[in-house]
Amino acid sequence: MSTIVFCAANKTALTSTRRCVFSHVKGLVGPGELQSPLASLTPLPGSRWLPRGSCVRFMSQGTAGGGSAAGRSRRAAAALSGAAAVTAAAAVAGLLANRKHFQRAEMATKVPQPAVGKEEEEVDILERCRSFMSEPVTDVGVLQERKAEMCTRMEMLIMETQAEFCRALQEVDGGTFKVDQWRRKEGGGGISCVMQDGKVFEKAGVNVSVVSGYLTEEAAKQMRSRGKVLKGKDGKLPFCAMGVSSVIHPKNPNIPTVHFNYRYFEIEEEDGSKQWWFGGGTDLTPVYVNEEDGYHFHNTLKEACDKHHSQYYPDFKKWCDRYFYIRHRGETRGIGGIFFDDLDSPSQEEAFNFVKSCARTVVPCYLPIVYKHLNDSFTEEDKDWQQVRRGRYVEFNLVYDRGVKFGLATPGSRIESILMSLPLTARWEYMHEPAKGSREARMLEVLRNPKEWV
Amino acid sequence: MSTIVFCAANKTALTSTRRCVFSHVKGLVGPGELQSPLASLTPLPGSRWLPRGSCVRFMSQGTAGGGSAAGRSRRAAAALSGAAAVTAAAAVAGLLANRKHFQRAEMATKVPQPAVGKEEEEVDILERCRSFMSEPVTDVGVLQERKAEMCTRMEMLIMETQAEFCRALQEVDGGTFKVDQWRRKEGGGGISCVMQDGKVFEKAGVNVSVVSGYLTEEAAKQMRSRGKVLKGKDGKLPFCAMGVSSVIHPKNPNIPTVHFNYRYFEIEEEDGSKQWWFGGGTDLTPVYVNEEDGYHFHNTLKEACDKHHSQYYPDFKKWCDRYFYIRHRGETRGIGGIFFDDLDSPSQEEAFNFVKSCARTVVPCYLPIVYKHLNDSFTEEDKDWQQVRRGRYVEFNLVYDRGVKFGLATPGSRIESILMSLPLTARWEYMHEPAKGSREARMLEVLRNPKEWV
Repeated sequence: MSTIVFCAANKTALTSTRRCVFSHVKGLVGPGELQSPLASLTPLPGSRWLPRGSCVRFMSQGTAGGGSAAGRSRRAAAALSGAAAVTAAAAVAGLLANRKHFQRAEMATKVPQPAVGKEEEEVDILERCRSFMSEPVTDVGVLQERKAEMCTRMEMLIMETQAEFCRALQEVDGGTFKVDQWRRKEGGGGISCVMQDGKVFEKAGVNVSVVSGYLTEEAAKQMRSRGKVLKGKDGKLPFCAMGVSSVIHPKNPNIPTVHFNYRYFEIEEEDGSKQWWFGGGTDLTPVYVNEEDGYHFHNTLKEACDKHHSQYYPDFKKWCDRYFYIRHRGETRGIGGIFFDDLDSPSQEEAFNFVKSCARTVVPCYLPIVYKHLNDSFTEEDKDWQQVRRGRYVEFNLVYDRGVKFGLATPGSRIESILMSLPLTARWEYMHEPAKGSREARMLEVLRNPKEWV
Repeated sequence: MSTIVFCAANKTALTSTRRCVFSHVKGLVGPGELQSPLASLTPLPGSRWLPRGSCVRFMSQGTAGGGSAAGRSRRAAAALSGAAAVTAAAAVAGLLANRKHFQRAEMATKVPQPAVGKEEEEVDILERCRSFMSEPVTDVGVLQERKAEMCTRMEMLIMETQAEFCRALQEVDGGTFKVDQWRRKEGGGGISCVMQDGKVFEKAGVNVSVVSGYLTEEAAKQMRSRGKVLKGKDGKLPFCAMGVSSVIHPKNPNIPTVHFNYRYFEIEEEDGSKQWWFGGGTDLTPVYVNEEDGYHFHNTLKEACDKHHSQYYPDFKKWCDRYFYIRHRGETRGIGGIFFDDLDSPSQEEAFNFVKSCARTVVPCYLPIVYKHLNDSFTEEDKDWQQVRRGRYVEFNLVYDRGVKFGLATPGSRIESILMSLPLTARWEYMHEPAKGSREARMLEVLRNPKEWV
């Protein structure tokens, strides 16, 4: 069971908090079961696919505006069992922020999440599709027919992840995602959800793509990071590839950029046997170091990983630092998280369950950090430094990112979806060198020497 | 003889123009020989190495603020023989702009320039070095000793080109270039001149680099675009490579970005024979199409090319459109210019003379356009579109540019010098699509279908 702790500024705020949280949660066991009128219309993001029994605690904090140290003295005030907790809690924190009662929300994940994956069998495909941002790429009839196949299960997961994350972001921003469904003439297509120049987010993109067709043996080899040789019929291999990916660039320099991507590949060899593997990761790119955010983010990921294999977090954390490395700068893009590729063990079922855990950790990893810093003040210098870091983000994405390079080189790719990861604005200052001892210098130090956060 | 025609707003302005031009020109034959007190201290950019006998005419324009059509009705008013004419003229136009007499300066090159290259033998190395932005990379004693070698002659040319261009930009902007001299531990170094957040220029970078050392056969093959195989002693080839390169991003969206780069490579093979070649080009990236600017820019280049070979301009114009192509967008970076590589014919002397002509065309290609639009008004929408185009500039440079890719992948490269080509600010808007018939749509049309300007 994961626990998200929010520290509200005073007990009055706390009372509102509890009422509001419960007003957003529908059909979940918990103390207080007021139903939101919205809940009956639009299924709440996460109301089915977030870890069951996850727990959110709201805490009162004696003095308003207490710093990070004060924030650590947490006291439990309320607990709620239910999948939508994280999102609902986030919404509440936003509400409080607007009421100006709220000074600072801080969070930590404590308790491991339960095994996930039960609701897949329980809920009908059609019913699950209702919560999506748009129709899925594959025809719903085909999905229902091939319900048990991994391609279907993964497409459902990525559509759900997109919807959950988009709705959580809409709730905090107040804006609405622009939803574009696109088709690829070579087979498949995607759904791009983009919110630009919102109240909180400068640019938020959450993209699903499901593509299929035939690969040459050379292309198949390139798709797999370890370059495994695959044998096709007349050199051609039927494949399907799908994934959800997202990059969120907030306006406030105290709110970090987040990126995640979860993907699945399936290639059929000459003899009809199927090669499959998963890849993915979630990583954070703050503008300034915040130890507590770093701990929360990494610890949430670690807990999701630990349920599946004790080596996953340490190995995938290292992989992440290695992957998101801007070689020509000698610095990582951000403070990392997890990254993995070519995951084809111990079994397809277990690998899928792990990916599902990861996908469901996106909201609890990120949203509490967004709410915590929502009203943080910042200077023009902070904003400049953010823009310089955005420039580095662009450098990584255009020079090194395998996904972007593969996408740009693939005929029929949707360029706008590939490049939606780029920030709305960026800056390149010649010879930018932060002053010794500054917050900017501290950030660079961490980027040059990746640290252990947990 | 090249002729730059400036149209000043009225005859009062014109009179001042003439006086000021002459006050900046030292030791040149021309009508009026007032000397600037500064001229005796700092040699004027171009006062020795600009084409002798080039001619600048200042023209009065009947009505102030006349549009492009009005601008075409030009009347000659004054003529000046002298190398510094272009730069000096530019300075004057700036002065007039400040006095608010000046409304619009328009230009056209008409007369072919004379053959260049005489002053090399006439002027002492040490004397020539005095005008540079800093000491040259190679020790002056060594340069004097090896005066006749192509490496020396090219290093002198690129240092002069840097100084001439920087001074011309300083004059129009009022700002000063920050000059950084850097050393490469593997051999050689460079001089980076950057002006950031100036009055006219958002970011202006003019870089010289002179590097030497040993190349592997594989690296040597990659350096040469046609991939010629070179044989080294024990697989190692002594090489020297040098070049001047520049990217200028102005603030006003009506002033285009310019880029140029002229370079020389020399590789010594196992048997002691030397392989050498030149490369380079100058190209323009406007935010909006301006037919007259396009004509002026291309025609100035064509005239420089035509003096050497009638096929140079048409061939190198096409090469430029092909090279500066953003494949994933299906559009060129700008309206082109010329681009060539691997130039090793008809002789080293003639190839060098061609490159010299090109290098000396940079100021007359660009500065008149800068002055013409110096006081053009613009809207926030114009600025937004400029920022979107800057984003595309970044995409080209980071994804496709061979020089940038080679630089980023080369150990010991100076990253700040390689990436100084990136704009200070850029923007990526999701699904940006200009309205039909808009100026933005017209720009895209030209970028999607490169046109003939001359």
